This record gives sequence, structure tokens and C-alpha cells, in this order.
Amino acid sequence: MNQHTVKAYGDELNQLTAEVARMGGLAEAQVADAVESVARRDIALARAVVGRDVKLDIMHRDIEKKAIRLIALRQPVASDLRKALSAMKLSVDLERTGDLAKNIAKRALSLAETEPMQPLTRSIERMGRLVSLRLRDVLDAYTASEIDRALSVWQSDDEVDEHYNALFRELLTYMMGDPRTISACTHLLFMAKNLERIGDHATNIAETIHYEITGDDMVGERPRWTPTPSDTAPGMGQMPLPTPDL
Amino acid sequence: MNQHTVKAYGDELNQLTAEVARMGGLAEAQVADAVESVARRDIALARAVVGRDVKLDIMHRDIEKKAIRLIALRQPVASDLRKALSAMKLSVDLERTGDLAKNIAKRALSLAETEPMQPLTRSIERMGRLVSLRLRDVLDAYTASEIDRALSVWQSDDEVDEHYNALFRELLTYMMGDPRTISACTHLLFMAKNLERIGDHATNIAETIHYEITGDDMVGERPRWTPTPSDTAPGMGQMPLPTPDL
Repeated sequence: MNQHTVKAYGDELNQLTAEVARMGGLAEAQVADAVESVARRDIALARAVVGRDVKLDIMHRDIEKKAIRLIALRQPVASDLRKALSAMKLSVDLERTGDLAKNIAKRALSLAETEPMQPLTRSIERMGRLVSLRLRDVLDAYTASEIDRALSVWQSDDEVDEHYNALFRELLTYMMGDPRTISACTHLLFMAKNLERIGDHATNIAETIHYEITGDDMVGERPRWTPTPSDTAPGMGQMPLPTPDL
Repeated sequence: MNQHTVKAYGDELNQLTAEVARMGGLAEAQVADAVESVARRDIALARAVVGRDVKLDIMHRDIEKKAIRLIALRQPVASDLRKALSAMKLSVDLERTGDLAKNIAKRALSLAETEPMQPLTRSIERMGRLVSLRLRDVLDAYTASEIDRALSVWQSDDEVDEHYNALFRELLTYMMGDPRTISACTHLLFMAKNLERIGDHATNIAETIHYEITGDDMVGERPRWTPTPSDTAPGMGQMPLPTPDL
């Protein structure tokens, strides 16, 4: 391999990493804007999120193609191979994150047509901010190759679950209290679920960063929220509130 | 490369494909059993599904490790590289499918404690059978390398969406009619959503098979259900039924 080939190869890998970072930036913005569009009942912003999602799909395919091409033609080994494989994995998580943000924005459009439900929307907003923060932290960890920061995102997975579970209970209580809100609350229910799943993708991303840097899988079980007896105690009416995500 | 190395390499690839097929068989059984456990309110079966899920997690990690090892050490090209990359991708979809089946089974356990809701459970069962069938077809396509069969699964994606949308409306109507059923219906709502997502994974698998065999991405847009005006017409009460998945 001559000097020129070596340089081009390193460039290709760096370019791949940069594209993933850029895709991460867009996904992060999509999530933040989707949450903002719910909080502010901002139809224009929600539409912008929906319209921009196709960019993430294109970037995902592009990164995947480039990574496969690089693996096939350059046959990288060790940490270079891990970089290429991680780029593929990360682009999948970011593409799915974008889909979930788009779905939140679409639901924001539907909700904008109904009566405002202040306390519930604010809970979604809080959960959304938390999830956005996790996504930002893990993407920072990626660009800086900071394994400790990735690890701290991975370890704080249960915070999002706790938020989700509280919000789930709040929503059920609201629906039971006023059945006319059921269809609107269903949107909020799926929004909360989507945010929880975005949190899961942030955790996946943390695991991929760990693998890329160390070559090892994360050790131990991913922290998981477990319902305590008081969480599953009957809440109201004749039926106990279900444990939300089980 | 001597004869022995070539043979061992071919063996490794075949073994990888066989492991994916086996993982597919388990995932398929998990989905079918999860749906069965809902239909028959079968607590033992639901528990079995929950307990077996860890096998899919182990298989997923194992396939991923073997595929990466094969790529790193054997440096396959062309269709062999696609086979290894596809194995990685398929194992992700199958692992996620398993998670969704486990979640359905856990919800079946919660539902077994509540009053039976016959018509709704039967709708879940019908949707579950349809999704199981798609999964079986696409896994048959994988083991037989039949691109036409994979394509037909890919093209019939909207059937599942139609089922989901009908079921979603049915559930909302039920909840509005009897708010005491809200928490139980929420389980059914998420079950339906999980089945829809398993259907999406079947579609992903079809795309991966297409890529593995041809080297090309699927051409054209994946078929998507679009709400017709009558679907979004106000159903009952003061609020129109939301378009379920948007």
C-alpha cells in the first residue's frame, strides 16, 4: 500500500465518522424540535420536523453503503473495522430515532387541533428534555471518543423509564377522569412511549461507542427500572393501573 | 489459501446462515406463542415466552460476534460479505422481534387478571396470526433464498397496518364506552402496536434478503397505509378519533 492509498483510506474512515456525527446532530435537532412543537403547539415546527426526516433516511443509506464499501474494498481490521461497523450500527439507531421524532411531530399536529392539556403537555416536555439531553451527551461522547461519558449515559437509563412510568400513570388517571380526552391522551401515551424508545436508542449508542473504543461488549446488565410494590398498587376505580412497560 | 482453509471458511458462512435460520425459528415460535397466550389467557405459556427470550439475546450476540470475526479474519468480498453483513442485520431484527413478543406475553399475564374482553382479544389474535404468517413467509424466503417470496412479504406490508388501524379504532371505542376498561385496553393497544412493529421487522428482513441476494437496495417506496377521508371522520363523542399511527 503506498502513501497515497493509506491517506485516502484514513480519509474515508474519518469521513464516515464525521457523517455519523452530522447525522447525530440532525437526529438530536429533530427530537428537540419535535418536543418543542408539542410544548408550544407549533404547527409550522412540527411540519418542519416531518419534512426533514427524509434527510436522515438518506444519510442512513449513505453511511451504510460507504461502510460496506470500505469494508469490502479496504478490508480493515481491529479498531478500523470496529469504526466501520459502529458507523453502520449508529446510523440505524439514529434513523430510528428520527422516525420516532417524526411520529411525535405528527401527533403534535393532531394534538394542536384539540383542547390544550397543560399539565400533561408539560410532563411530556420534561421527559422530552431529559431524553434530548441523553442523546446530546452520548453524541458528545461519540465525537470526543469519551468512554466515561458514554458509560454515564448507559448507566442512567432508568431515569427515562421512571419518567415514562410516572407519565403513563398520569395519562391513565386523566383518561379515566374524563373519557372525552381518551383519543388525545392516546397520542400523548404514544409520544411518551416514543421518547422512552429514543432513550433506549441513546443507550444502544452508548454500547456501540464502548464496543468501538474497547472492542468489548458492555459488561453487566443494562440498568432497568423495576416496579416497586407501591407502583403497582391499585390507583383508582375497580382496576389496578397496569405496570406500564412491564 | 489451501483447500482446508477454503472449506473451513465456507463452513463458517454456512454455520452463520444456519444460526440465523434457527434464531428465526425461535423468534417465530415466540411470536406465535405470545399471541396464543393472549387468546387462551394461558399464564403458563406467557411465562414460558418471557423466560425463553434470553435465548434470543444470546443468539443475537453470538451471531454478531461470529459475523464480525468472519469479516475481520476472512475478509470476505461480494456475496460472502453480504451474507455476513445480512446475518448481523437479521439478528438485530429477530432480537427486537423477540423483545416485542416478550412484551406481549408480559401484558398477557396482566390481562389474565382482568375481565375477559372477547371481541377485542379475538381481534388481537387475528392480527397476531397475520403477523406470524408474514414472519414465517419471510423466514422461509431466507432459508430458501427465494427473492419472490421475500418481495411478496415486502409488498403486503399495508395489510398489517390496516389491521392495526381497525383494531386501534375498536379499542378507543371500547374505552370511551366503558372507562373502567381503560387500563386493560391500554395493554391491548400496546400489544397491537407491538404486533405492528413485528410486521415492520418482517418487512426489514425482506429488504435484507433482497440485499443479500442481489446486492441492491429495494427499489421504490415501501407500501404504506394512508388514511382515507372516511377513516379520519369523527367517530363518536366530541373528538374525532385520531389517526392511529399517522
